[in-house]
Parts: sequence; structure tokens; C-alpha cells
Amino acid sequence: MNTFTDIPGVFAGSCNCGIKQKAVGAEKAPDDLAFIYVPNACASAGVFTQNTFRAPCVDISAKHFKAQTIKAIVINSGNANAATGAQGIAAVEETADIASKKLGLKAEEVAIASTGIIGVQLPMDCIASGLNTLLATPETKNGLATAHAIRTTDSCEKQAFYRATIDGEEIIVAGIAKGAGMIAPNMATMLGFITTNISCSNEQLQRSLRRAVDTTFNMISVDSDTSTNDMVLALATGEKEVSPSSLEDGGPFARLLEDCCRDLALQIVRDGEGAERIFEVSVSGARNEEDARIFAKSIIDSPLVKTAVHGADPNWGRIAMALGKTSGTKLDPNRTTISFEGILVFENGLPCEHKREDVSLAMKKDHIVIDVTLGIGDGNARAWGCDLTKKYIDINTEYS
Amino acid sequence: MNTFTDIPGVFAGSCNCGIKQKAVGAEKAPDDLAFIYVPNACASAGVFTQNTFRAPCVDISAKHFKAQTIKAIVINSGNANAATGAQGIAAVEETADIASKKLGLKAEEVAIASTGIIGVQLPMDCIASGLNTLLATPETKNGLATAHAIRTTDSCEKQAFYRATIDGEEIIVAGIAKGAGMIAPNMATMLGFITTNISCSNEQLQRSLRRAVDTTFNMISVDSDTSTNDMVLALATGEKEVSPSSLEDGGPFARLLEDCCRDLALQIVRDGEGAERIFEVSVSGARNEEDARIFAKSIIDSPLVKTAVHGADPNWGRIAMALGKTSGTKLDPNRTTISFEGILVFENGLPCEHKREDVSLAMKKDHIVIDVTLGIGDGNARAWGCDLTKKYIDINTEYS
Repeated sequence: MNTFTDIPGVFAGSCNCGIKQKAVGAEKAPDDLAFIYVPNACASAGVFTQNTFRAPCVDISAKHFKAQTIKAIVINSGNANAATGAQGIAAVEETADIASKKLGLKAEEVAIASTGIIGVQLPMDCIASGLNTLLATPETKNGLATAHAIRTTDSCEKQAFYRATIDGEEIIVAGIAKGAGMIAPNMATMLGFITTNISCSNEQLQRSLRRAVDTTFNMISVDSDTSTNDMVLALATGEKEVSPSSLEDGGPFARLLEDCCRDLALQIVRDGEGAERIFEVSVSGARNEEDARIFAKSIIDSPLVKTAVHGADPNWGRIAMALGKTSGTKLDPNRTTISFEGILVFENGLPCEHKREDVSLAMKKDHIVIDVTLGIGDGNARAWGCDLTKKYIDINTEYS
Repeated sequence: MNTFTDIPGVFAGSCNCGIKQKAVGAEKAPDDLAFIYVPNACASAGVFTQNTFRAPCVDISAKHFKAQTIKAIVINSGNANAATGAQGIAAVEETADIASKKLGLKAEEVAIASTGIIGVQLPMDCIASGLNTLLATPETKNGLATAHAIRTTDSCEKQAFYRATIDGEEIIVAGIAKGAGMIAPNMATMLGFITTNISCSNEQLQRSLRRAVDTTFNMISVDSDTSTNDMVLALATGEKEVSPSSLEDGGPFARLLEDCCRDLALQIVRDGEGAERIFEVSVSGARNEEDARIFAKSIIDSPLVKTAVHGADPNWGRIAMALGKTSGTKLDPNRTTISFEGILVFENGLPCEHKREDVSLAMKKDHIVIDVTLGIGDGNARAWGCDLTKKYIDINTEYS
């Protein structure tokens, strides 16, 4: 299988630096420190968590993205370095400083991402000696190992590799991600790192990434909670020229980037804590796209919808409830239609004749689709959630 | 124990009219039709669900409250009469018509409440014959039976009776409620019916009820979902005169009404689907009361906080996450302090020294308190939630 370091000019590697310990019976401790390095990066872009309690690595990386084109990313897992005060801020600055010196970059050309326990200081001796070893050979191509190293409680690595011919050039968008919910003890959620071989400006890449994240990573939910450390970053090598229009909304590069992001986002939902089934909610005919997004997210976030999906129960009453409970949106129950796996259960305000057992049977698979049409305007959105299971309770309940 | 029909001039009763069937092994079918009758009501007030998919009984009752002082309420359980189209609207109008004729009232003096299955037409023959029997003797005092009759999946009846001397008069505020989450198959949530012996205007009672509901019923959450049929109604008999100021915010009647509503609201949380523990979140020092309410509700709604409470886990990282994920609020992590059961765990942006086992031990009881102080302004709010357990999944998962 292809990995993102198969793109010329994209390097990555990982090691164990001592944050994560060797598990009982394991041969060695898992990797907990990784880097991505694109020495000739022509453009970089980043989208960051909106949580007010965000970690210093988020604040500082966001600042670096504004100041410079980012050429390297250092990622550690096992410690989120969040709620760590002034010492936490100094740790991020020191990490960027060490990495930039080893790579001959400015500190502002390095971004930092952390995921793991909240409220514990980052062991800087581990990070420093780990970076020393790791960045001694920066032109490494260990994409798969890097995908493994950035995990916390993820059960598997998450990778995507997309290729298309655009304007006569072979364009690649490939990336890795981690995330399976915000887990005990305080594991932080979602990281995504995307690389591509196109040539573009920071502004172009930022616009494309923003739009792709809005319709993919921002439209998934494991448990409606938002972490302190989320970020999705993209770097471009500058190798292949494409027309500016291919990066615009709906253009072939924008679509390729969206495909790659959606693929990674769905891998996160599929690996959601305790999840046994994904459900896709497609809302059409809303007043506008914003309304459609609010409706779709209200449905995927509802614990009652999530438990109904878990039980393969075509409970349209809960879909109606989740639509109705949103505020500031426009909705007319008498024009609203709901179907599960293509089977109409509620049409223009009234329940439809259907055999509940048949619909339930159709829902007994890994990925189901719920369609909602509102008959008001042309706003559409899709969102993806996972079912709510007893295993989620097990994973998230300490001391029980 | 006192019940709300102990108030002079307040009558109520119930019967089985055929909506609910006799359970296997049961002696008789449970009551499913009830009325509350205050023939000399001087004032009435109502607060209704904001869900757009709301049932016709909500729309029509809200209209009646605007037009008249309500003197009777008809309540059925087992069928929510929601998503039932024109026939559902006609059923509510017919119910009000039958009841008003039997009681010698105008149809607009009757309110209707329904709770139960969504999407099934109300059996009007049952309702009509039930009302015929029930309203043949309207001056009945069966408060407890009425509290039982309005239940759906509630495990017990919910009653409150509050008494205080105000302006030299013995004032009573008493009521009943039902609700335990929005349950399969599509059971609708929360009803509250309050009666009092004071004399006041509709406007005075509406203002007092609105305020009391905002700080009690609106500050609880079983699963963050909002039903199509929620309503809280209040009727006053007009017997006792009190000064207008006692109804104002902070006045003795306002406080008595708030106590009664909070008592009923907490009974609903305690009976939450699968709940084993209540947690009270007290937020102080927010920019304003609105911010404080948003923060408190974000914490009680978070599945990660709810599972942590279930496991008696003092997981302050999840409290911080729930505070930070709200939008439009003001927050400074460096002035934020969090404690569980009076034990500081996070102070002014940094974790505090504490023995996790001690805090966990302190959390192992039925009702725990989480305090959050924000150090920004003087906005305070309290909210109450219940833990998220495997039993919630069991109750809400069909066909599994």
C-alpha cells in the first residue's frame, strides 16, 4: 500500500523517546515521537481546534503558519501538553528550536502537534534526545511507522493516498490521521497531516484545506466532544504545476483533497470508541448549506439517534426530534421526508407504510445512509457518525 | 404525603381509556387518561417545547393560554399524537371540545397534553368514552393517581408539595411531573403541572413560571435531546392574596415556585434512563448569567463528563474541554478553577496536587457537586445531569 512519503520530497520517521512505556509482555515500547519534513515545501496550510482551552502547541503552530511556509512538523503522542501553563509554552518553543537547528530551518518553519494526557508537563529531556537521534537522518521515508507513532488509543493506523491526472500532471494527495474520540485519561482527539506534490501559494492551499476540512473532518462525530489539541495541516512540495482553477471550489485538486480528507475522517469514525456501525446523514433541500450542516450534525450528535442506529432501529421520530431541536434554522415538518437505506419511513409530515423488520434488516450493515429532504431550498450537507455502544461506556468510565 | 389536590379548589383524577393495554400478569391496565380541574382558576401560565417538530397539542394549548385563563387540563399517556398531520390536530380540538362541554367551559379554557408514541393517531373513541366517565365526577381529589397516570417509562410518580407563609398567608405550590428521557419507541419527554392557591394575574404567573422553568427544568439533561411534546403548565386558584413584590424575581413566592420546580426537575434527572448518580454543576464568575448557563449545560450534556461521573473519575480535563468547546462565551483558562465535591483539582490554569483516589472516593455517592469558577464576572448558574451508563444503551437500543 502507498504511503504519503512515496511523494518525492516528503520525508517522515519516528522513534520511541520515552514518553510511552513498554507494555507488559511487549518486545519494545511503541513509538511516541515523529516528524514530517518537506525541505522544499512551497506552501503550507493549517486548520486548528476552536476550543478555548487549546494547548500551547496549537497556538504556537497557528502563529508559525501565519509567519512562514512550514517545512517540518514534530509530533509526539502520549502527552498532550495541554493545561501546562508557562512551562508548557516553553516546551513547545524549545521543541521547535531544537528541530529547526537540526534541520537548518527557522524555528517559525516548524509546527508542533501533541496528543495524549492533559495536565502533565512534557518530558523535555526525552523530546530533546529523541529529536537528536531522529533528525540525524531527516531524509527518511517511514510513512507507515509515522502513522503508527502518532496514535494514542487508535486501534489501527489511518492512511490515505489519492492520485489523479490534473492538467496533464500526476497529482498526489496523501496523508495520515489519528483520533478515536476524547478518551480516558484525557487523551486528545484528532490530528491530520496531508502532503501533496502540487505547486501553489499558502493562500491557495489554505482555502482548499479549509473547505475540505469543513465538509469532512468537521462533519464527523464520535461523541460530540471537541478536543484541546485538534489540528489538520497540509504541506505542498511544489513539484507539479496545475492551473489555479483546479484548486478552486469544485476543481479537480479541491475534489482530490476532499476525497483524501473524507477517507481519513471516515477512518476515525470507523475507529470511534466502541463503534460497530457508521451512519451517513445526507440532508438536502435546506434553506442554505449552513442550515443543512446544522441539521446533519444535530442528527449525528444525538445519543438517541446513535443508540437507535446501534439497534438497527428505523426510529424516524428521533431524526425528527434532532431536526426540530436545532435553533435558528428553518424547517417545515409538512415538507420533511426521511428514509433509511433508501426506504421511505416519513413523508411530508406523516409516517409512511413500511415493514419495520425490512428496514431494520437493511440497516444491519457497517455503513448505513439516512436521507433527509426538507423541501425548502437548495442547501445540502453530509455528516458521518457512529453508533453509541456499551463499549463506549466501558472505554470512558474509569474506576468502575 | 401531601399531593397537589390537597389545595382547595384543585381537582384531578384518572382512568384507563384503552390506549395502554394490560401487561401480562397484571391485574388491570394502567391509567392513561387524566385531568386537572381548577374551576375558579384566576390565572394560568405555560412554557412549551421549542422543538420545531412539536405536537399539535403543544401548538393548540399555547394558543389557548394566550386567549383565556385555563381552567382544565386533559392529559393522556401512551400516545404523543405527534407527526400525525391534520387528523392529529382535529383530535386535539375534539378532546378540548368534549372536555369543555362536560365541564361547562369554553374549549379555549382547556389545555391538552400528550406523551407516548410518535406517529400513531390518537384513538378518539377511547378518549371520548374515557372523558365521559372521568368528567362525570369532576370534583375528584386523586392527585396521586393522576401523578401515576401521566407516566410513560418513568419508574415512579413525581410529586412535590411546598408550603410557606407569605404576607401572613399560607401559600402552597404543588405539582406533578413525568419524564425520564426520550425513550424507545419514541416516547416523549417531560410534562410538569403546577398548582398554587395564590391570587395573581396571568402575566404575573407567566413571568414567575418562565423564570422558575429557566433555572430548573431547563437546566437538567438526561441525554441532551429535546422532545416534541414538553410543556410545564401552572394554574392558580385565586384563594390567597399576596403582595405583587412576592412574585417578582427573588421574592418569596418566586422562590417557592422555583423550589417546587427544582424538586420535580431533580426527580426527573434521578429517574433518568439508566442513571445511577446525579451531578450538580455550579458555575460562578462568568461574564454574565447567559454565559454561566451555557457553560453549565455544556458540562452536563457532555458524554465524556457523564461517563467520568459514572466511574467516579475526577477527570477535570473533560470539564475544561466542555467549557472550551462552547462558542460565543468568554473564558480565560488561567483564571479557571475546578473542584469535585469541594476538592480543588485545577486552579487558575494549572492542575493542583490531589490524591485521585480520595476525590474518586468522595464522588461515590448519589448526588455530587462540581464547582467551576471563572473569575471573569458575576454570572452564576446551576445545572443537573445524570451519569451515562450501559443501561441507557440497553433502554434506547431496539432489536439488539
